[in-house]
This record gives sequence, structure tokens and C-alpha cells, in this order.
Amino acid sequence: MNASAALPQSATVREVGLRDGLQSLARILPTEQKKAWLRAAHAAGQREIEVGSFVPAKYLPQLADTAELVAFAKALPGLFVSVLVPNLKGAEQAIASGADLMIVPLSASHAHSLANLRKTPDEVVAEVARIRAARDAAGARMLIEGGVGTAFGCTLQGEVTQDEVLRLMQALLDAGADRVSLADTVGYADPAAVGRLFERARALVGDRLWCGHFHDTRGLGLANVYAALQTGVTRFDACLAGIGGCPHAPGASGNVSTEDLAYLLRSMGIATGLDIDALLALRGQLAGWLDGETLHGTLWRAGLPKTLIAA
Amino acid sequence: MNASAALPQSATVREVGLRDGLQSLARILPTEQKKAWLRAAHAAGQREIEVGSFVPAKYLPQLADTAELVAFAKALPGLFVSVLVPNLKGAEQAIASGADLMIVPLSASHAHSLANLRKTPDEVVAEVARIRAARDAAGARMLIEGGVGTAFGCTLQGEVTQDEVLRLMQALLDAGADRVSLADTVGYADPAAVGRLFERARALVGDRLWCGHFHDTRGLGLANVYAALQTGVTRFDACLAGIGGCPHAPGASGNVSTEDLAYLLRSMGIATGLDIDALLALRGQLAGWLDGETLHGTLWRAGLPKTLIAA
Repeated sequence: MNASAALPQSATVREVGLRDGLQSLARILPTEQKKAWLRAAHAAGQREIEVGSFVPAKYLPQLADTAELVAFAKALPGLFVSVLVPNLKGAEQAIASGADLMIVPLSASHAHSLANLRKTPDEVVAEVARIRAARDAAGARMLIEGGVGTAFGCTLQGEVTQDEVLRLMQALLDAGADRVSLADTVGYADPAAVGRLFERARALVGDRLWCGHFHDTRGLGLANVYAALQTGVTRFDACLAGIGGCPHAPGASGNVSTEDLAYLLRSMGIATGLDIDALLALRGQLAGWLDGETLHGTLWRAGLPKTLIAA
Repeated sequence: MNASAALPQSATVREVGLRDGLQSLARILPTEQKKAWLRAAHAAGQREIEVGSFVPAKYLPQLADTAELVAFAKALPGLFVSVLVPNLKGAEQAIASGADLMIVPLSASHAHSLANLRKTPDEVVAEVARIRAARDAAGARMLIEGGVGTAFGCTLQGEVTQDEVLRLMQALLDAGADRVSLADTVGYADPAAVGRLFERARALVGDRLWCGHFHDTRGLGLANVYAALQTGVTRFDACLAGIGGCPHAPGASGNVSTEDLAYLLRSMGIATGLDIDALLALRGQLAGWLDGETLHGTLWRAGLPKTLIAA
């Protein structure tokens, strides 16, 4: 079997550091620094960025400036702007903000869903139907993505079956989501499980399976991305410097780092449009803004190999 | 394509921290601590360990106690003991030591070969023929492994072609090596290149392709292991806590970490015989011995997932 034969020609790295990353830090990054981050990420070639979340500021004060960031990001040429929304109220703010896509998180783990969203998974599906109705009533062209989290297991509940994940993914589409994604919220995925689940998911919904979201909690993040790439998935979430996690999932720190993921893709000749040196420079800037926080990622220590610098 | 269908049932993690790891540190770990490491690694289920290198002590004083460590390791039940040898003189010491396998490093990069071994790659092949003759003359049952390094590129020379790597691999076997292995000495490999090279190598020499040796210099170490597993390779070098590198290859720090590799394999149900909690405990002990050194690896932060602890 020639595994590499199955790899796509190009892929998209969706930056989620301003949402998934910053929401997990106690400190609040000033809006001006977030705008500098967005400007530099766009200059480095990033064209899809999740800029924040329409969650009440009392829960996530770190993301209270989301509406302002959407407006700023929409002014950057060709940038596709995503936001996270937990419910209909957030979706109405998202529609009003003019973002291009809203991600509605659903946790396939019943226990994690109640802890994180205060709803059962099927209550979230019902909310997506209301969000779709509101989007259509507003005549908005915004896309709705249902994000199925804890798709590989959960720190609270333990096992989550692939059948349940696929059932909920289909239910989200039936309820009116335009896209679905699969997330290893707590870093329980392994490459073999990723290969199996993403193959089944793509067989079920094809290209409406929009994105893979992996954490590097136990070092398997990029191996999991590679396994998903082999099934034909071409979009992955990542956080610059590997910041992020899930406040309701103990030990779930660390999204796949943007710069390491960009390097993985470039090393295999998969086009991303990203300037990795510019991403590494931005990482250095972010490290200054987040002085004292634990950052992740590996490429920054060694830089690009001679063979790619020459190329 | 179901990528995971191709995975082996079991695999071996060969510990090389006492050689590849310690040779890259300026400090000298006392022999008693090395023995404690060997004892604990064996107790954690490790059954193949490279304990040192028969290199003149003036070049690598960190490994001057290799003969004593071979004798100690051979007394641990069922432990298969490897040593590195750079030339015939080292091979004669290795044969006298009673180790089970000697690894003769060859660098597929001409420039790296001259810098690291002071020989051209083909001069190393000729040395392996002399080593084979010495082994046979001594009537020793010890195995000879030819380790082809910089197999994916080189910090000095840049590109190394797969054709040249395969030519040298075959030449090593023709010269009398019993086994060959492929090493990404400087962290230039990517999963697609690994899949291609290991597939070609196995097609050429079958199971005489004995081991894959990956560094995590740029974060791709475990993704590369996964790609090699998909070609049927079942043995991988690793260093506890990801210590290691190559003194003659700038920026080449960090072997794949033993505990993260053990977790990758276990997460996919590939049997290794390893006790991961015991490896994490030993990592903590090593961190004390190497206080002040930069360690690597990720699993130690979060520990095993609930789903595997329950299992």
C-alpha cells in the first residue's frame, strides 16, 4: 500500500488560536494585540480564521471583543471569518456581525455535553435547527458548521462510540448544518482511530465533512492529522504556538500548533499558501504578548530544513 | 483505503537513550545511574537496549563505560543488548564484550559522512566487510546492523536521494551486514517520504530492514513512525524523555521519546510489552539525573487517557 498516494494536493490550516487558544488562558489579550495577530496571520497567508465566540462576556471575558474583531477581520482581503456560537442567541449575534461561518459545538460525550454546554447532544441538534431557521429568516449567506467534539473519547465519560459520533454528525446535517467537523477535544485520538472514523464520516457525508480539529495533549496531534489527510480531509484547525485546550476537560491543553502543521503539510508538498517563516516570526511576537504562559510546538526550535529553505 | 488495516500486531521500541541520547549531552551520567536506568527500563518491559558505543573515550567520554554496561545488561533476563561501533577496532571490542548486536553507522550524505565518520559512505561499506570477516573469524553469533543515517536529507549537504540510500543499504547487506536500518539523523523526514522510502526498502530487502530511527527535531517524529508502521516496519529506536541528537548535525536535537512512542503504539492496540506508567516514572527519575538539560516528549504532562487506564 502506498499510503502517500492518497494525499491531497492542497489543504487549509484554519487558525483557531484567537478563540480556542485564548479562551483557555486566564489573561485577556488586548483587542489591539488580537488585531495585530489577525493582520500578521493574514500577511503570512492565513485565509480562514476563527476570531472569537459569541458567548456571554461573564463566561468568557477573554472573547468579549468578538464583534469588533469580526468587523476588523472582514476588512482583510479574502479572509474567511469564523466564529463559535453556543446557542441561538449567540447565532443571532453572529449573523448580525457579518462573519462568514458559525461553528456550533456539539459534544458527542453526554457527560461532557452537560458539563460544557449544559445541554444533551440531541438538545444541541434541536438548537441547530432553530439556528438554521434564524439564518434563513435573516436571509444571511453565512454557513453553519456543526462541530462534533469529544469524538474520540472524553475525560469525564471515557469511551465515545464511533456510531454515536456518526449519528450526531448526520443529525446535525439533517437539522440544517451546512458543514460538520470532528474534534478530538481532549487528546484521546490515535491515528488508527482517526483513519477509521474519518473514512466512515466521509463515506457518510462526503465533502460536507469540513474540518478536523486535533489537540496534541499526548503528542499524537500531527500523526492524527496525517491519518486524516490519508482519508482525503483537507482542512484542519490549529493554534499558533499550540495554545488552547478545553476549560471543561482537565488536561486537554494544547491544540496542534499552526506552524508545525504548516510545516507538516509543506514537507509533503501539500500547498497551503502559508509563509512558515512569517508564522514563526508571529509566534515569537505572540510569545512576548503571552509572556509566562506555556507554549507548545517544535519547529520554532530548529526552523525549516535546508532542503526547504533552498526550495 | 483503510490505512489502519495495514498496521502490525506488535512492535518493538528499542531504547537508544544511553547511546544516542547521552552522547549528545556535555555531562557524563555516572555508571551507577546508567545501571539504574537499565534495570528500570528492563523492569518496564524494554527488551532491546543500545547501551553505548565503542568509540575512543577521548571522543565520547560520556560512553567510556560501555563494556561494563554490556556486561551488566547481559545479566538482565531476556535483554537483547546492542552497541554502536564506528569501525573495525570498535567492532573487535564489541565482539569481546559479548553484546548481541552491533550497529555500524553509515551516513548516506557524503558531506555528513566525512564530518561525522571521517570516511566516505563506500569506505564504511568496505569497513563492514572487514567487520563481518572479524566476526566470523571470532565465531561470534553477534548480529551486524548497518544503520543508514541522514536517509532523508542532511544539514550539511541538503538533499540525499532515495536511490543513493537504497544503493548503500543493499551494499551494506552485500558486504555482510545481517540487518539494515534507516535513520532520519537530522529531522528532515516527512510521513510521505517515509512511506515511499520504507516501502521501497522493504520491497528490496524485506525483513532485513530491521529498524526505523526518527528524530523529532521539527515535530514530525511520531507521524513518521506511523507512516513507517503502515509499510510493515515493526521496530523503532527511541530515547527516554526525547534526549539525543547528533553532535555533527546542528539543530538535530531530540530523538522520538520512548514514552510517547510507547503510547502511540498502545493507543492503536499494537502490543509492545511495555508498562507506560513505569516508563513515565523512570522519565521522572532521569529528569532528576539530568537536572538542567532540555527534555522532550508530551505524554508526561497529561498521562494516559482514562480509556486506556480503564482498559
